[in-house]
Formats: sequence, C-alpha cells, structure tokens
Amino acid sequence: MSNAIKIAFIGLGNMGAPMAANLLKADLRVSVYDVQAAPVAALAKLGARAASSSIDAVRDADVVISMLPTGAHVRALYLGSDADSEPSKQGILAHLRAGTLIIECSTIASSDAQALAQAASTYQVAMLDAPVSGGTQGAQAATLSFMLGGDAASVERARPLLEKMGKNIFHAGAVGAGQIAKVCNNMLLGILMAGTAEALNLGVANGVDAQVLSNIMAKSSGRNWALEQYNPWPNVMPGVPASRAYSGGFASKLMLKDLGLAQELANAAHNAQATPLGALVRQMYLLHNQAGHSELDFSSIAAMFGAEIGEAALG
Amino acid sequence: MSNAIKIAFIGLGNMGAPMAANLLKADLRVSVYDVQAAPVAALAKLGARAASSSIDAVRDADVVISMLPTGAHVRALYLGSDADSEPSKQGILAHLRAGTLIIECSTIASSDAQALAQAASTYQVAMLDAPVSGGTQGAQAATLSFMLGGDAASVERARPLLEKMGKNIFHAGAVGAGQIAKVCNNMLLGILMAGTAEALNLGVANGVDAQVLSNIMAKSSGRNWALEQYNPWPNVMPGVPASRAYSGGFASKLMLKDLGLAQELANAAHNAQATPLGALVRQMYLLHNQAGHSELDFSSIAAMFGAEIGEAALG
Amino acid sequence: MSNAIKIAFIGLGNMGAPMAANLLKADLRVSVYDVQAAPVAALAKLGARAASSSIDAVRDADVVISMLPTGAHVRALYLGSDADSEPSKQGILAHLRAGTLIIECSTIASSDAQALAQAASTYQVAMLDAPVSGGTQGAQAATLSFMLGGDAASVERARPLLEKMGKNIFHAGAVGAGQIAKVCNNMLLGILMAGTAEALNLGVANGVDAQVLSNIMAKSSGRNWALEQYNPWPNVMPGVPASRAYSGGFASKLMLKDLGLAQELANAAHNAQATPLGALVRQMYLLHNQAGHSELDFSSIAAMFGAEIGEAALG
Amino acid sequence: MSNAIKIAFIGLGNMGAPMAANLLKADLRVSVYDVQAAPVAALAKLGARAASSSIDAVRDADVVISMLPTGAHVRALYLGSDADSEPSKQGILAHLRAGTLIIECSTIASSDAQALAQAASTYQVAMLDAPVSGGTQGAQAATLSFMLGGDAASVERARPLLEKMGKNIFHAGAVGAGQIAKVCNNMLLGILMAGTAEALNLGVANGVDAQVLSNIMAKSSGRNWALEQYNPWPNVMPGVPASRAYSGGFASKLMLKDLGLAQELANAAHNAQATPLGALVRQMYLLHNQAGHSELDFSSIAAMFGAEIGEAALG
Repeated sequence: MSNAIKIAFIGLGNMGAPMAANLLKADLRVSVYDVQAAPVAALAKLGARAASSSIDAVRDADVVISMLPTGAHVRALYLGSDADSEPSKQGILAHLRAGTLIIECSTIASSDAQALAQAASTYQVAMLDAPVSGGTQGAQAATLSFMLGGDAASVERARPLLEKMGKNIFHAGAVGAGQIAKVCNNMLLGILMAGTAEALNLGVANGVDAQVLSNIMAKSSGRNWALEQYNPWPNVMPGVPASRAYSGGFASKLMLKDLGLAQELANAAHNAQATPLGALVRQMYLLHNQAGHSELDFSSIAAMFGAEIGEAALG
Repeated sequence: MSNAIKIAFIGLGNMGAPMAANLLKADLRVSVYDVQAAPVAALAKLGARAASSSIDAVRDADVVISMLPTGAHVRALYLGSDADSEPSKQGILAHLRAGTLIIECSTIASSDAQALAQAASTYQVAMLDAPVSGGTQGAQAATLSFMLGGDAASVERARPLLEKMGKNIFHAGAVGAGQIAKVCNNMLLGILMAGTAEALNLGVANGVDAQVLSNIMAKSSGRNWALEQYNPWPNVMPGVPASRAYSGGFASKLMLKDLGLAQELANAAHNAQATPLGALVRQMYLLHNQAGHSELDFSSIAAMFGAEIGEAALG
Repeated sequence: MSNAIKIAFIGLGNMGAPMAANLLKADLRVSVYDVQAAPVAALAKLGARAASSSIDAVRDADVVISMLPTGAHVRALYLGSDADSEPSKQGILAHLRAGTLIIECSTIASSDAQALAQAASTYQVAMLDAPVSGGTQGAQAATLSFMLGGDAASVERARPLLEKMGKNIFHAGAVGAGQIAKVCNNMLLGILMAGTAEALNLGVANGVDAQVLSNIMAKSSGRNWALEQYNPWPNVMPGVPASRAYSGGFASKLMLKDLGLAQELANAAHNAQATPLGALVRQMYLLHNQAGHSELDFSSIAAMFGAEIGEAALG
Repeated sequence: MSNAIKIAFIGLGNMGAPMAANLLKADLRVSVYDVQAAPVAALAKLGARAASSSIDAVRDADVVISMLPTGAHVRALYLGSDADSEPSKQGILAHLRAGTLIIECSTIASSDAQALAQAASTYQVAMLDAPVSGGTQGAQAATLSFMLGGDAASVERARPLLEKMGKNIFHAGAVGAGQIAKVCNNMLLGILMAGTAEALNLGVANGVDAQVLSNIMAKSSGRNWALEQYNPWPNVMPGVPASRAYSGGFASKLMLKDLGLAQELANAAHNAQATPLGALVRQMYLLHNQAGHSELDFSSIAAMFGAEIGEAALG
C-alpha cells in the first residue's frame, strides 16, 4: 500500500462524508478534514487518517478533493485569508506539491473555478471543477453524476477515483465548464418542474385526474425528468417530496440560488444571452420563497399555480 | 365477413389516409370519404368501399371515425350547415343508427367535443373524443397514441380498432378529457422545447459544446423529450428538423395554435387557471411566427434565443 | 317640453343611477327601468318616468341608453331570450322605432357590440358602443370619459347628452372601437400599476423611502397615472385605496377580467397580436386573485411583489 | 473673484461639456480635464482653466464634479490603478484637501458609489452620487434632473451649483440612493415604453387608429410619460425618434444596460426582490438588441410587437 495514491478529502457534510466513505470502501488511502469534529471521527473509524487541519490533511497528498457549501468557503480553503496570518487560516494551495491534482466538487460560479485554476497553475497544480448531481442519495449509493471542467489528462487521472463515488463522468470542457453545464441543467430543471406543475394544474382544473394525466404525458412528448422521477402533485408518486407535504428533497431556496446563478451566467456571456423562461421561472421561485416556502422542496411550486392542491398540502 | 363490423372513415388527409390504410391491412371492412377524390380512390385500391358522400359513407356503419382539420369541419360533418338545405350539406348525425359509436380523432376544443357528444346522445349514438399524438410517421407506422374521452364501455369497444392504428391507448376521463389531456401535453411540450433551447444557448454562449451539453443533460435532471428525441440545436442529432434547416416536422404555427388552445382551456377553468410559463412561451411563439418563421419546425425557436445558431440555420 | 327628445335609460346600478340622475338634473325627459325596484323609485322622485318593463321604458324613445354588467345582459335586453316567448322576455330591439339611437355604455366584447349594431341596423336603428372610464365617482360628478364606436353622425347626436354625464367624449372609430380603446387602455393601466409597484418595491428593498422615490419618479420619465393619481404604496398618498388597506376602488377581480378581455382581443386580431407584458401581468393578477385578494383594490398587487408592505397592509 | 469657490470638472463628453459650459455661463470658476484635448480647448475659450491632467485639475479645488461613462472609469479617476505607479495613473482622491466635496454624476452601480464615498471619507472628503436624467438636450438647456445620494449638508452645499445645470434637485437618501432612484425610474420607464407599445399595437391590429388611441389613453388612466412625451408609434408625434425611423434618442442598448442594473439591484436586496415585469422587459430588450436594433432608439421596441409598423419603419 506504500505505492497507493494519497487522497485528501476536505468538507465532510451531507454530501462529502458519504463520498469519502465510498473511497474508503474501495480501499483507497484517504486523509480527511472538516471544521466539525464528528464526521472526521466517524470516517476515521472507517479507516481514514483524521487530520488536525486542512494543511495537515494535504500533507503528501497526490489528489485533493473538496466539497464545500459556497465559493467563499472554497476561496478560503485554497487561498486563505489575506487579513490573517495565523497558520490555521493559511490557504492550502501553497502547501501542495507540484503535480498534485485538485478535484473541486462544490457548486460555485464558473468564474471562481477559473480563478482558482489560474492560481493553482502557478504552483504547477492542476485542477478540475467537478460539480455533482444526484443528491445525498446519489452520494451514499455512489451513483452521482460528475460534470468536469479541465484538461483531458486530468480527467483521465481523476476518472478511477470518481468511479468509486459516481456512475456518470462527463467531461464538459475547459476549467469552469463543469459548473456551466450544471447551471444550464438546473435552469432547465426549474423550467421542467414549473412547466409540469402548470400542465397538471391545467388538467386537474378541467376535471382530468392528476395520476391519469401524469401517466399519459409520461408516455407522450411532455415526458421529462420532473414528471417521471419527481412528480410534483401530491400522492401521484410514492416516496417523492410531493407525497410527504413537500418535505425533504431539494429546497426551493436552493433552486432559487441556482436560477440566480443561471441569470448571472446569462449576463456574463458576450452581449448577454436571452433566457425568457429562465428569467420568469426565477421570478416565480422568488415569489414562492417570499411567500414563506423557501424550505419546502422545489416541487412545491405546484401549489403556487393552483387552488387545487391547497394550502394543506404545504404541511 | 358479413358479421364483421362496418367502419366509416371520413377525412383522408396526411393523418387520416394512413390510419384508414392500417385498418384495411387488418382486414377490417371500411368505407371511406373525403372531399378530395384522390385519397378515396387510393384507399379503394387497398380494399375500401369508396363512398360518394359522407352520408353514403356512414350507411350501415357500426363505427364512424373522423379525422378533420378543425372544430368547424367537425361540426359541419356531423351537424351540417343550418343555412343550407341541400342534402349534401346535411349533417351525418341524423343518418346514424342508434347504437353507433363515433370515434372523433381531430384536435378540437374540449367544449366542442362535449357539445357534439350531447347532440349524438339524442340519437342514442355514443362518442369518444380521441385526439392523437405521434404525427404522420406514427400514423403510417401504426404507433400513434390515442387520448380518449368518454365512457369505459365505449373505450373498450373502440380499443381493438385503435390498436390497429396505434400502440398507446389512454383513457383520460369523460368526453372532452382526451382533448384536455392533449392540450396539457402540448403546452408542456412547448415549454420543454423553449426551455431546452434556452439551456443549450446559455451553455454555448459560455463556451460549452452543444453536443456535449446535450449528452450531459440527457443523463441528468434536465432530461426531457425535446432534448432526447428532437434536439433543437443544428446537427446535434441526425434526422431531426434542426439538422435540416428546421424543415418538416411540426410547424411553429401549429405549436402556436396548441398554445392558444391551452390558454383558452386555462380561461375556461372555474376562476381561470394561472399558467405563467405557458402564457410566456405562447408569446415567444407569437413573436417567432410574426418574424416569418411560421412554417419552420417548432424547434426553430432555438434560433430566436441566440445569435449562436444564426439566420443561416433557418434555411 | 313636448318637443324635447325622449330618453330611455335602462340599468340603474352604481354607475347607471347617477348617470341617469345627471340627465334629469339637466331637465332632460327620461324614462327609467331596472330589474330592481328601488333605484327606479329613487329616480322617479328626481323626475323620471318609472317604467314597468324595459319595453315600457322604450315606448316612444328617441334615444336608448343602457348600462349593464355583462354582454349576456346586453344581449338579453336587446335581443331577448329565444327559448322563452313571455312578452317580458322579449328583446326591446323589435319595439324601437326606425331612427332611434342606442348608446350602449356597458363594458362588453367589441364583437358583441358589432353583432348588436348589425341587428339594430335591420330595424334602421343606429348604435354607438360607449364604454366609460372614471368609476362611480366620475358617474356622480359627471366627469366620466366616454369612448365611442360608431358613425360620426351618431356621435354628434349623442354628444349633447353625453356632455351631461361626462367631460371627455372620444370618438375611437367604427362600432366596437369604443370597447377596443377601453380594453387597450385598461391593459396598459394594469401594466402601469404592476410596473410602478415593482419599481417602488425595488427602491424600498434597497433603502430608499417610498414617498421620496414616488416624488422623484413623478417628475421623471417614470411618470404615469398609477404613480401620480393612485399610488399603490400604503400611506404615500391620502385618499387612495393603498392608504385604507386597499379597500374600495377598482377590485382586483375586475382588473383580471379586463386583462382577460385584452388577451381575447389579442387573439381576435388577424394572426394574433403579441402582448408579452399584457400576458404576464394577467398571470400576476391571476395569482393575486387566487391568493384570496380578488375583492381588494387592484393596487394591492404591490403587496405581492414585496415583503416590505407586509400582510398587515392587506387588511 | 478670489473668494469664489473653485470647481474641477472632469469628463467632458456629450453630457459633461455642456454641463461645464453652464457653470461657466454663471461666472463660476472652473478648471476642466478630459482625456480628449478638443473639449478641454473648447471650454477654455469659454473661460475655463485647461488642466493638463486630472490631478492638475483638482489642485486647490473646493468641489470636484465628474461625469464619466462607467464605474470602471470612476474608480480609475479617484482611486487610480494599483498595478501602475506612474504619477499620471494615480487616483485624484489622495490629492484632494480635507473638506472638498465630490459630486459624482456618472450612472454607476450604487455599491460602487458607496465604496467610493467610504474611501473618500478617510480623506475627510464628502461625496454625493448625483446621476442625472434629461439627456443631452437637458444638459444643454440646463434642465437636467439630479437624483442625489448623501448627507443633507452636502446636498445644500451642492444645490447652488446644480441649479446652474438643472431644474429638479432630488435628495433620494444616503450615499448610493441617487443611483438606486435612477435605476428604479429607468426600469419603470422600460416597462412604460414596452407596455405603451403593446397597447398601441393591440388597438391598431383591431382597427383603431394609433393617433386616436394615443389621444384617448393620454387623457385616461393609461396616461404615462412614454405615451405623452415620446410616443413610440411612427408619425403620431412630431420630433420624437419614432417619427424619424427611431434614430437619435436613447439607444436600445442603453435601456438594456439600465434594465440589467435593475436586475443586479434586485438581486442585491436582502433575500432578493421579485420584479416579474422588469425581468421580462429586459428579456424583450435582449431579443430586440440581438435582432440587430441596439443602436435604434428604445421606442423601437414597438416594431418588435407588431407587423403593423413594419421593417421599413426601422430605417
């Protein structure tokens, strides 16, 4: 095992912890760090080296994997805080060896990913932005999808590790392209969900049963992921948030955040890019969040478009 | 063959003619009529009885199937023209025997379907509204989907015939529900197409390849019929309108018509039904049609949202 | 007074009663009828002849003025009910003398106005559609605006009477044009109100005072009727609905009705007319009505766009 | 004249040059600077001191007035370029005396205005953000409106100078509030213009004359600045861009920029602020610009909504 590659995994939340666990299950050599002590200890029991700091975690690492909440956390981890010279607040970038590979899995702005890759290159460190889809279930079941931005050599180097944590590995393009692909997908998802909710409300308001209409559209040209995997109408599909008062799942406030990232990306394009439905669905989620439903699953937008579902369904 | 049920098929256009032909291939007994002589003659060669009028066609019929362009045509066929007493302008309803079944396959307003069923009931004639999806290809290949509105007994009576012309037979609810289901589905389809077009434009404007992004979203939560079966980006998918300058397919003017039917249906619901994305996508198709693209396939909306595709792609 | 023109006024609700009273104040000769007895009696005290039926009211009339809630009421008044031969259910059109002038003040579809004018012409009776703006205050103060559709001779014949009830007399065009002008104006009004509400919310959410911002925009290029006459922010302007918990005024459900008429008119235009903002603002009023605010003044849409105003302001 | 206050005016473009000229006409003492030599020389003929650099211009200044294209230019002027130590690239802030007043008239983000005021305060220099409306005509005629953000004492100190250049002086609130008020106003203006264009198109498509409909709405509740001062229909109003093929005026690309600033401001608000019409009208201007009309006056959006105006009207 002395020749095995050494992985540092930083950020052990609902997503990061099961991802790191899947690496350990594959007998990989992993050091772990998080600002919370509990997940570090839990992973140590599974065989990880419990690091005392992020800098300790990356000592001798060949590959660094990070999974953090926001771009600000990512910048702090890698680049540190200028205003503070405490060792613990230093960024880890300066502590990586030339030739190290960073796999940055957080969902951040593509411009942030590009800036970080630029900084890493001055240390001869390569970086992939590698946002995921699939949720906590996918993290646990090792069925995540990874959308990668970076050079082809780095993608091939990362692939064997990512295959331990997911089942779909997509190379979207240069650094930042992983984030762009994820934002495009999630904007489309918001449109699919709201559009499906409108179509079901329209049918029910005219007397057609939601279950029957769902079955018909799922085998017709209205077919889409929201309809088939995540039906927004209460009790049409077992096990989805709509069948448990819209609890759990992907919160409306997170969909709103992603729709905002999409609008920022649209504005960043040369001359700006028109996205009329993307802009409108963002406004709908703004109104839905403002009405007090930010913690409900994003399929709860179905209750906004129709009196048919009723307030009771919102729990 | 004297005991075989007798079918009258009226309306032999691009959809009706191959549907009638599929009934003949199954050795069913069919009389046919159309205002054009050519398709009548063509079907006679396949074994149909060539009727000289719609009233002649329905003589002794057990089942009447109609496939016409608009609600006005359907009313004229069944109810005739009040202002004109010529025999040839009489409606066929008065010529049907009690116990006959009407299978009305045209895409018309659900209120029109309900009014016709009401009129038919006074003659002890049952009716199903039975709009189809699947296009001329589906009509030829006998792979249409039928969305039925009417009572269960009529549905079961129609099923063996419909199975000769299609592969999915859906019972949506009472009379009119077939039309409602179709309109809901097609409104959703318009949203899927425009939303997919926006997401692809957003990615491409930020440097991600349309083919790569399509592959990623097709395996992610952005998955939908438009992306997988009918990709709107030029040359991403062979054989679709987007890869032949948006020719053929389902014309933008027809999508605009269906989005208009959806808004009428939304207004018809008690207290009216909100459909913000449905209303906006209809406005987008209005602008697209007005810009001169009404005959292009409806996936050409992708060219409206981005300079990336360019005018050249519109043929 | 024997040579004075004889006016029949039918429909004595919140608008019609004060309008008829203003004619009486000008010493005009008026017979009145309404399905309610009370307003008939009240106007009789002011000098009107109390008619026992609509047919009685129009006996010997030179001019008929009607002010009714909907197009269905207007049709029933003039054309009667086909299904019922009771004299009291006959339409009045057949009882008018050739040369009579109808001034139809209700807000109805322009197509309904055109159909009625066509029917009237067979009796050699001329008609103006003459919808009003100005509300019950304008009706009482004789400051209504009339938007007229019809020929110029009829307009000049009506003008002296209309000047007793209003201060602006506009000739919009041929029959139906009065209704069209009113619908265009009210669609624009809905956009002005919602747009003003958005701009004020945007400023307040960023720390600018609503009163200060209103003053600035009222003297800048954001100036509009909603901002200057009917400010939607609570307590910025005394005497408007926003300063009394959005009570009184023009109900949200009535604005929703007018925005629906605008969409019908847009669809009626050859090839349909695109109105993206008109379609969206209608959807916003649908959501607002559905949320339970249909009886509040239409300026209450300001509460939909911002947490700043708060539920308390909705009374 | 030795006691007179000394003004430095920097930025002598289409707006700045006539504004500085108006100060000179009032016999004020003004030094001027611009990166272009021509306007400096022109103003010197009117009595200004021609400065050789921005630092030279502010020598001994009591008040600094700046009018520049973008926030980046403003930052460079006051704060200089970090990466470059050439004297000419130094910011002027470090060269101002304590007690100087900055009146910053450019249209920039309110956050940029706040950051600059913060930096100025460390030098004991006060700042007002003071964006204007009224265009080049207003600058020449000294009829501009100023929307001021800053403390009341600074506003009173600036007022006598601003009254030489404009006629409306609004105090919107603390630093940044001037920019916020301007963005709110211009978002509303975009909505008024597009809404007015829709209403006129709707009327014309149904046979009502644009001039007649404009007259009616201008005296009704649809009244607004776009309709009354800047009618978007060709040849309804003399002297406006719509009557000269949409040339001159306020370019569509500038309206698009302001609508983008409004969306940025909406996102900057705590929890973000919903602006459905503001978001949609921005998308309409994106499509309009993308269609090649970015240099046309912003009232040309009227041609987007209707075939009635026609391509010919776009010049």
